[in-house]
Amino acid sequence: MEGQYSSKLLDDAVGQFAKLPGIGRKTALRLVLHILREEKEEVSLFTEAIRAVRNDIHYCTVCHNISDTETCDICANPQRDHGTVCVVESVRDVMAIEATRQYGGVYHVLGGVISPMDGIGPDDLNIASLEERAAAGQIGEVILALSATMEGDTTNFYIYKRLASYGVKLTTIARGISVGDELEYADEVTLGRSLVNRVPFEQTI
Amino acid sequence: MEGQYSSKLLDDAVGQFAKLPGIGRKTALRLVLHILREEKEEVSLFTEAIRAVRNDIHYCTVCHNISDTETCDICANPQRDHGTVCVVESVRDVMAIEATRQYGGVYHVLGGVISPMDGIGPDDLNIASLEERAAAGQIGEVILALSATMEGDTTNFYIYKRLASYGVKLTTIARGISVGDELEYADEVTLGRSLVNRVPFEQTI
Repeated sequence: MEGQYSSKLLDDAVGQFAKLPGIGRKTALRLVLHILREEKEEVSLFTEAIRAVRNDIHYCTVCHNISDTETCDICANPQRDHGTVCVVESVRDVMAIEATRQYGGVYHVLGGVISPMDGIGPDDLNIASLEERAAAGQIGEVILALSATMEGDTTNFYIYKRLASYGVKLTTIARGISVGDELEYADEVTLGRSLVNRVPFEQTI
Repeated sequence: MEGQYSSKLLDDAVGQFAKLPGIGRKTALRLVLHILREEKEEVSLFTEAIRAVRNDIHYCTVCHNISDTETCDICANPQRDHGTVCVVESVRDVMAIEATRQYGGVYHVLGGVISPMDGIGPDDLNIASLEERAAAGQIGEVILALSATMEGDTTNFYIYKRLASYGVKLTTIARGISVGDELEYADEVTLGRSLVNRVPFEQTI
């Protein structure tokens, strides 16, 4: 599909946009033609923001969340409960949990889950630094909030083994029927687990 | 919605992506997190391609098509029929017509259509240069290939009046394209056939 336009510059820009996930060549062309109609100063702001986010961003030295500083805003916040650590796969999960406004603890971003099929082992993830945090003795509870997949379960179990000797309470987020979902469309595993892990009705009101 | 992330750099980059048409903040975040995982060299290629396409691109001095040179490949091609000029709204329409492989003439890109509602008058479009091309006496036929909208019809009629005195044959592409549809979304067969079956403009008014 390369070289189909009358301009190599146009071709290059469309090709670059089309490399982004979920952006096809037709959408890429639409975006580039939009950029051609924008002021040069606006386009400079766009390219500079992308350059800066890639080259200047930090990852929090404590929890590996995205940050502009050595320690992220959450880890640096004395109002958060630093004795409770929620383990997540990615920074997007941090954002999703923060959006619920239900959590006052801190995080630990693994950077993925153990997936032998994709060649991702424990050493490719931020698990050693999680163990260090547990070994430091300041953590009372680690909440495992990974995806409800085989890889997520494998990673949960691996972390459980690694942290076993530190006397840290390990919990996982509840699996069950999504709020608003109808029972008959729930998959059997989810429905089964939601029955086994049923909670006293009084807790839910 | 600004300032919702833990990093100002991330916030800026997401905000910039979200300015693009059809890109919401959720998609913008996905794109920025993708860029964070890319090699710096790859991201440099991306920003450089965007900078270059905005700053270095030319518009053909004859037909106003996008070009890397003073005169575009189509206008510079001696094999094209320079006596037949197809008038279109945008460079995307040139691409759409070229993709049909049904047309051997040259183009004239107006840069839009007359639209008083949007404050676009004849002087905002490349109509004077079209008249100059007609006045030069080298053009036998002008094919009007604008969108089948009220604005497109208005622009057709305006061009018809402007070119009336130059003895140029005026045709419009056949209304095989549904009224209200935009040219670039038409399928290639319909668009190609509508070019082959073009009719004298007088029949359409």
